[in-house]
Amino acid sequence: MKIGIVGASGYGGLELIRLLHQHPEVEQIDLFTSSEEGSMFSAKYPHTLTLYDRALKGINEDSLSSCNVVFASTPAGVTSELLPPLISEERRLIDLSGDFRLKDPAVYKHWYKKEPAPIEVIEQATYGLTEWNRDAIRQACLLANPGCYPTAVLLSLLPLIKERLIDPTQLVIDAKSGVSGAGNTPSQMTHFSETNENLSIYKIHAHQHIPEIEQAIEQFANASIAVTFTTHLVPMTRGIMTTSYAPVYEGITEEDLLNCLQETYQSSPFVRVMQDATKFCTKQVYGSNFCDIHVKLDRRTNRATIISVIDNVVKGAAGQAIQNMNIQMELDETTGLTHVPLFI
Amino acid sequence: MKIGIVGASGYGGLELIRLLHQHPEVEQIDLFTSSEEGSMFSAKYPHTLTLYDRALKGINEDSLSSCNVVFASTPAGVTSELLPPLISEERRLIDLSGDFRLKDPAVYKHWYKKEPAPIEVIEQATYGLTEWNRDAIRQACLLANPGCYPTAVLLSLLPLIKERLIDPTQLVIDAKSGVSGAGNTPSQMTHFSETNENLSIYKIHAHQHIPEIEQAIEQFANASIAVTFTTHLVPMTRGIMTTSYAPVYEGITEEDLLNCLQETYQSSPFVRVMQDATKFCTKQVYGSNFCDIHVKLDRRTNRATIISVIDNVVKGAAGQAIQNMNIQMELDETTGLTHVPLFI
Amino acid sequence: MKIGIVGASGYGGLELIRLLHQHPEVEQIDLFTSSEEGSMFSAKYPHTLTLYDRALKGINEDSLSSCNVVFASTPAGVTSELLPPLISEERRLIDLSGDFRLKDPAVYKHWYKKEPAPIEVIEQATYGLTEWNRDAIRQACLLANPGCYPTAVLLSLLPLIKERLIDPTQLVIDAKSGVSGAGNTPSQMTHFSETNENLSIYKIHAHQHIPEIEQAIEQFANASIAVTFTTHLVPMTRGIMTTSYAPVYEGITEEDLLNCLQETYQSSPFVRVMQDATKFCTKQVYGSNFCDIHVKLDRRTNRATIISVIDNVVKGAAGQAIQNMNIQMELDETTGLTHVPLFI
Amino acid sequence: MKIGIVGASGYGGLELIRLLHQHPEVEQIDLFTSSEEGSMFSAKYPHTLTLYDRALKGINEDSLSSCNVVFASTPAGVTSELLPPLISEERRLIDLSGDFRLKDPAVYKHWYKKEPAPIEVIEQATYGLTEWNRDAIRQACLLANPGCYPTAVLLSLLPLIKERLIDPTQLVIDAKSGVSGAGNTPSQMTHFSETNENLSIYKIHAHQHIPEIEQAIEQFANASIAVTFTTHLVPMTRGIMTTSYAPVYEGITEEDLLNCLQETYQSSPFVRVMQDATKFCTKQVYGSNFCDIHVKLDRRTNRATIISVIDNVVKGAAGQAIQNMNIQMELDETTGLTHVPLFI
Repeated sequence: MKIGIVGASGYGGLELIRLLHQHPEVEQIDLFTSSEEGSMFSAKYPHTLTLYDRALKGINEDSLSSCNVVFASTPAGVTSELLPPLISEERRLIDLSGDFRLKDPAVYKHWYKKEPAPIEVIEQATYGLTEWNRDAIRQACLLANPGCYPTAVLLSLLPLIKERLIDPTQLVIDAKSGVSGAGNTPSQMTHFSETNENLSIYKIHAHQHIPEIEQAIEQFANASIAVTFTTHLVPMTRGIMTTSYAPVYEGITEEDLLNCLQETYQSSPFVRVMQDATKFCTKQVYGSNFCDIHVKLDRRTNRATIISVIDNVVKGAAGQAIQNMNIQMELDETTGLTHVPLFI
Repeated sequence: MKIGIVGASGYGGLELIRLLHQHPEVEQIDLFTSSEEGSMFSAKYPHTLTLYDRALKGINEDSLSSCNVVFASTPAGVTSELLPPLISEERRLIDLSGDFRLKDPAVYKHWYKKEPAPIEVIEQATYGLTEWNRDAIRQACLLANPGCYPTAVLLSLLPLIKERLIDPTQLVIDAKSGVSGAGNTPSQMTHFSETNENLSIYKIHAHQHIPEIEQAIEQFANASIAVTFTTHLVPMTRGIMTTSYAPVYEGITEEDLLNCLQETYQSSPFVRVMQDATKFCTKQVYGSNFCDIHVKLDRRTNRATIISVIDNVVKGAAGQAIQNMNIQMELDETTGLTHVPLFI
Repeated sequence: MKIGIVGASGYGGLELIRLLHQHPEVEQIDLFTSSEEGSMFSAKYPHTLTLYDRALKGINEDSLSSCNVVFASTPAGVTSELLPPLISEERRLIDLSGDFRLKDPAVYKHWYKKEPAPIEVIEQATYGLTEWNRDAIRQACLLANPGCYPTAVLLSLLPLIKERLIDPTQLVIDAKSGVSGAGNTPSQMTHFSETNENLSIYKIHAHQHIPEIEQAIEQFANASIAVTFTTHLVPMTRGIMTTSYAPVYEGITEEDLLNCLQETYQSSPFVRVMQDATKFCTKQVYGSNFCDIHVKLDRRTNRATIISVIDNVVKGAAGQAIQNMNIQMELDETTGLTHVPLFI
Repeated sequence: MKIGIVGASGYGGLELIRLLHQHPEVEQIDLFTSSEEGSMFSAKYPHTLTLYDRALKGINEDSLSSCNVVFASTPAGVTSELLPPLISEERRLIDLSGDFRLKDPAVYKHWYKKEPAPIEVIEQATYGLTEWNRDAIRQACLLANPGCYPTAVLLSLLPLIKERLIDPTQLVIDAKSGVSGAGNTPSQMTHFSETNENLSIYKIHAHQHIPEIEQAIEQFANASIAVTFTTHLVPMTRGIMTTSYAPVYEGITEEDLLNCLQETYQSSPFVRVMQDATKFCTKQVYGSNFCDIHVKLDRRTNRATIISVIDNVVKGAAGQAIQNMNIQMELDETTGLTHVPLFI
């Protein structure tokens, strides 16, 4: 396989390179950039010395056309113009930005404050939440890879909502992320002296992943709801934990919740439902493509607490993208992704 | 004033020393210990060299009796035996443990898994949530200083529940704490290699601060509810953030919520209600006795998100204890506590 | 006293505010800025809400002239133009930048890559290494406050070089700093995701503090040497440790080294020489004006290892500046600086 | 290949499992323990769920004998008794502890404060510094895998000492390590609240890796010296940086130093000599088996600063052990070790 990565110098691109470098079916990886054409990748990222001593290529249709798979890992608003001309049955386009995820252009415009992609292109895009959409993903020429928060939220909640075990109308989602989710551009929010030894809350009720979560709950669990969703910045580089709260329906037990999750994911190697969790943390999936889920029913309030952890740059971005590519290429979906987490 | 600190070598005791050292009305501080009598405090904690080059004293009634104020900062289960004999109108006992907070011994036993203090002593104890109980605190011989989580939760929620602006029956509290809350005894949970670059959830629905929160909501806001409360361990030393979620009652606006909070605390110098909060974080109160509160109404779901931050070892422990002592000693309640937070 | 702070929105300025807020002799603090005139300080730094709800003033001679003491905490190259017109016997100017530290303009130009201050102004400037220059500091109208690294290095080495106990010609200084030393402007070097869980080396043999160290060794210890000095960036916000290595002269023992240090600083309340140091770390001075020093002689190699720790924004910047102001104002030098370190 | 790991629940064992799990030639991995026989490994380390859901085996000669390769990752003093009976030409024993590294039992006893292994066993042990001892490693039945600090120090210094470019008699080594080097047993030194936001120095001139470094310099570079070596604890989990200082001999240039290093390692895929290093840090090798080296000559003092970074649990322990196993098994030495570092 010949792979192209657009936006290779961002953290999404960097992680695609890390993971694809060990992928047994990948022959060649070309890196494309709009701003740093000709510069050596290993000069920008010295940790890739001897591994990627090659120059970044400028973005043009010809060179991108020669790739079997193109991953785009650019800021929102870029791929809505860049990718449409490349759509073809001979090529898989996997977009890690939010440009093709939302089906309603008005919703995109409202939450992203940017111009949406053309509606006819949006309609061609397939949402790449692997465990819930494998058949469509297999066929898709244009794949909208899910956001990091939605991945953690949806994998843990969809089964329980779909099977009508929890009441989604009272759903509250408290999400926490490491700082790498903010990308590689320095800002006050990611300035070490103000981020270290500090916990912040940001974009309260205003995160652009909210409509993505709601759309997917409608699509996969057939429930039309508005969620309360807040996001916190944790002083660590990698990792997302989402803690979700919802009342259970009458008569539902903790065992029902666990069983539902376990049955849903019994053929999904990357989703692990943990029965016991005296210790449940983001590091148990660090550097890996796992999504670990735990659930506990509070018998005093009849409310369930559902917890989900992922590595935001792996399962929340590059890892899930490669998992999707594996499905598209008729490979085992774990190919090249069998990393043991770096617990320490 | 002559001060005694029991349990001086724990983090609560250490912070009492840090703060009392700069208190203008404190003449002498004696440190008491059950296990390290005679050893130099500055040998155990070299950062106090030249500041506290004195030996720890053994705990006995005589030496404790000569103190005007005794702070006890010991693990749960210790002061229920230690303090009762010292109760006297001539002395103020301020207990930082959970031993005298819960009025119902059966509840204590259930959540703490320990024997409760004698019921007649519990009845004499006053709950030291400063901003809500100043008159009783002024008179109290035995003060039960609030827990760290309850302080952050109650200061932010009591006004809104009391004034019937939010519906407490659907209250969900997602709490996050730095690691110093676990004290100074090493364990796997506080082992750097497993805590750093990691976010954990612990004691789901099982934290002993739950009954304390519920009891205080009943006492001060006249609402009898069961709360859903979870706790997370954040890779930082100091700081607590609680993010609480509840529906607002019909017709309530964000302005109503803010006004209610601001009016409640207009004469409380340590509670700051923040109208705008693009940046709202634990470090804005680091090392200080402030509790900062912010609230946002999600118009899409009609649910309010109420956020509160404190320094867990200051306002959540030693600082509030000294604030209470100030009230008891008829001093301005800010005496010795006017620290500017260490934002960086 | 009426205080003016120029460059108040940087970390040096921020720490001056934190410390001066508790200074018993300070009546008023005015904050000056070149770029943010009129904006509220507490809007930029919400942690100062209710403490500094006042607008930043534009820099002009008139308003600065009404101050008894002016602290300047601006980037290198600013005060060489700003301060000279303000020099007067009625006012104390304390500059925290490097603009007036180096006596030789050519040396400044070489290491700072900027135009030096006028030579006649440089000649009027006094180097503010408190413990070594009190008499000159007391008289000085223009004070060049030392750099953070030089403070830690010089306090620990000057006694041993001056008393001819170690051979400075083989001196190697390995310095480590927290990230706050880089100031409040975001950059790749201070970007959390690339700084956290990472240790870097930077400006190898090229740090602008090298000539400052060498000049002070010549001035105070009468030795003319070139030092090997490297600097490392440690994933923490505050703190500097310098580990220095030099052979001892024939017959010198570890006790000689310790005695020399202890005698030198017996009347210096902020310098603590630690005899035993099983645990010697930056946090033992966190948030305080202490400089702690430890020394060990390696009998196998006859080389001494001399270690020094400071809080870079306190003793390495704002704290030492206030200590100097105290001396100039004929106050006890510890006034307003008696903080117990935040060990945790 | 059938692999046995003794001491699997420590961090060395954990990292062996992480790396061997992806090794293409490994068929089976058995985990052995002296204290937790029968317990499920994935219960202790939930991050290995679905990867290692198997019970720990008790240590006995029979089960260990059936392994082709036995890795021992136990505290010092354990393998000196455990391994000798297993020595055989049919089996490779790779010991990650310090028990077989030092050739002189008296030296071991002095620095480790423990009884040494029998002298006749020590004599059979081969020192596993891969890049310097490949031929002996290929033959070795009992391999003493190097310590973490010695690996970083020796790889960077041996070429320069051997080729007589730097003067080793004045060698000073300032070493810094992340906290995982202290293992998985909680202690005050690794207690998060006292380690986070803190930099410590420890075991000044007293680290047991000193004699290992000196012995290897004698063995491989033919120089008999005593080094000054100090160790610092950095608030991060993984990573070692060693900064070494030595005068260069007359006429030696920076280019000479770089050339010497580059020539030495031109056929060593895991050692990267960096010519330019504006950014040189531990994270550039995070999670990988690389050792990156940089050198700069200070023309003012004629002293070279030589910097080396490794991941202490990979190249400093488990990774180098597997690299050695590859050589012994006649595999390419990079087999199973081609990880791209996790720079973020």
